Amino acid sequence: MGTMHGGDWAGFQREYGSLPLDFSANLSPLGMPEGVRRAAATAAENADRYPDPECFRLRQALSTCHHIPAEQIVCGNGAADLIFRLPLALKPKTALLPVPVFTEYETVLRGAGCEVRRFPLSEENDFALTEAILPHIVPGLDLLILCNPNNPTGRTAEASLLRQILERCRETGTRLVVDECFIEMLDRPEKHSLVSRLSEETDLILLRAFTKSFSMAGLRLGYALCGDSVTAARLQDCGQAWAVSGPAQAAGLAALRETAYLDMVRALLEIERPFLTEGLKELGCRCLQGEANFILFHSEDMALCEKLRQRGILLRDCRNFEGLQPGWYRCAIRTYEENVLFLQAMEGVLIHG
Amino acid sequence: MGTMHGGDWAGFQREYGSLPLDFSANLSPLGMPEGVRRAAATAAENADRYPDPECFRLRQALSTCHHIPAEQIVCGNGAADLIFRLPLALKPKTALLPVPVFTEYETVLRGAGCEVRRFPLSEENDFALTEAILPHIVPGLDLLILCNPNNPTGRTAEASLLRQILERCRETGTRLVVDECFIEMLDRPEKHSLVSRLSEETDLILLRAFTKSFSMAGLRLGYALCGDSVTAARLQDCGQAWAVSGPAQAAGLAALRETAYLDMVRALLEIERPFLTEGLKELGCRCLQGEANFILFHSEDMALCEKLRQRGILLRDCRNFEGLQPGWYRCAIRTYEENVLFLQAMEGVLIHG
Repeated sequence: MGTMHGGDWAGFQREYGSLPLDFSANLSPLGMPEGVRRAAATAAENADRYPDPECFRLRQALSTCHHIPAEQIVCGNGAADLIFRLPLALKPKTALLPVPVFTEYETVLRGAGCEVRRFPLSEENDFALTEAILPHIVPGLDLLILCNPNNPTGRTAEASLLRQILERCRETGTRLVVDECFIEMLDRPEKHSLVSRLSEETDLILLRAFTKSFSMAGLRLGYALCGDSVTAARLQDCGQAWAVSGPAQAAGLAALRETAYLDMVRALLEIERPFLTEGLKELGCRCLQGEANFILFHSEDMALCEKLRQRGILLRDCRNFEGLQPGWYRCAIRTYEENVLFLQAMEGVLIHG
Repeated sequence: MGTMHGGDWAGFQREYGSLPLDFSANLSPLGMPEGVRRAAATAAENADRYPDPECFRLRQALSTCHHIPAEQIVCGNGAADLIFRLPLALKPKTALLPVPVFTEYETVLRGAGCEVRRFPLSEENDFALTEAILPHIVPGLDLLILCNPNNPTGRTAEASLLRQILERCRETGTRLVVDECFIEMLDRPEKHSLVSRLSEETDLILLRAFTKSFSMAGLRLGYALCGDSVTAARLQDCGQAWAVSGPAQAAGLAALRETAYLDMVRALLEIERPFLTEGLKELGCRCLQGEANFILFHSEDMALCEKLRQRGILLRDCRNFEGLQPGWYRCAIRTYEENVLFLQAMEGVLIHG
């Protein structure tokens, strides 16, 4: 289980007795903001009480932030919790997934008995989402899930294409879910997000997470922005009443006050993304031109993860993503110092190994 | 939603601007142990990382504590998380519930399309579980859920009756789930728990929670002890990978080291249970002889909750429990000082109101 996803520091720690340098988890390179850290710790010390099941204050704050009514917002125990609730709430019989994409969607949909159709993104075209998907949005298709920017490719969908997809979904009665969990890592999130469309698209659901943007993965906090309050209520009812812990709610509230933090993250990524990409290219890797806080690259070395692990570094092997062959890896973009260590280790393995 | 369960301090705070004295949530009267508090706060400060999806260290510690293999233990985001997973993992078509009982079982089972048969416990007999349930355990019944001690009645099931039920379930191929979330509050938990039967009863599942015993409801931590590892793996796979937060895992580990704490809780309950019961009786209430950390009582005043709320006290109105009429209320047993305040407020309402 631990090895199916990134971030298996616990498995590494059990084997080596120390913590790895983790390039396998897609978290903000700047770590948890100090204000969030303090808020979470204080809330943990005072966690005698049940958490507010309605996440009232957090949803109010998110409502102000995104300019949509609190009734259309549902908080969850990480975005993964909301992904789990999707098939329970929407009961789709058929769903379409462009692949490669985050594997949990398919796992969860199949688990709920939904027929999953895969739309393969072309490796030759760097896994870009194109108009070729449009004819696959057909009457009888209940659900389309997109990830924007896409995990693991880091590619974004063109705004004009998203408009066409939305229109096609409306025609065919297909519900569109866009996982925007990494969107705040983009240079200009507002250019890519569909949040402004929620007021007119009642069948649209957007997923967001604090986990990645604020590097608070251990606290678990995600949310769904829904086009209507009925869907939001259904998503809420498909989970337990107290899904979001007290520390997570407090951390989320604090994170929304960290206005400068995300700008700093984006500024760092702007510099480190090309640095890491060029470094990987010089080592003979094929790098995708992603725009998120991670890079999907291909190496001829099929045992890269194990070799890096022996050097204390975790990398995400992407061979278990449908549509990706062995040799594809995903690395997080981290601070300059960490990226240098990563490239040195890669050089050690690929050139001097 | 907030008013459907106890513990709606958030709703109270929004209305009155202050925190209530909460007798509606069934938490340990001694609050979170200091060691747990510190462990949770430290983990919250360091929650940059994803939580260990396997909860490896916590499950190891629970394995040592309960003398069952770690492979038969599954941790969840509160016991409520595991209750939600039950129908997904076991896919029961029919289930039997003695009522009144914690309402989540039925909600979750019905949500998953399971037929729920209710076995009404007799009010005349103080809602005791008796041999009368045995003929209702029949071939074709997939699942029986018991809560021991029962929430909201506080009644325990006789050990000899539990043996008969286990035997009958084995004959009929019925899976038995016993929610033991409040069992550590009993005077002698080991006398009541079925944990020692797990080695021979592969179809048995026990639910436990740190939430109540260690008053860490805001952190969310429960676990299931399964009779076999296959069921445990299925329960694990029916939830998201990172269901249990880092602070919850750390708090759980710390709680297992708090050996004296639960003894103190039990000693306090031994004194305060009769004190509160007698006090309520003197005010004309009918009190059930429960053995847990809460008391189910009946009052002629049907608006007791609202009147106490105006005095800053939360009480659980039990009329939404199937099998309970209006007039039944559940109060937590808290510290002497708090219990005195509660009885004074009750006197104010019932005698001088």
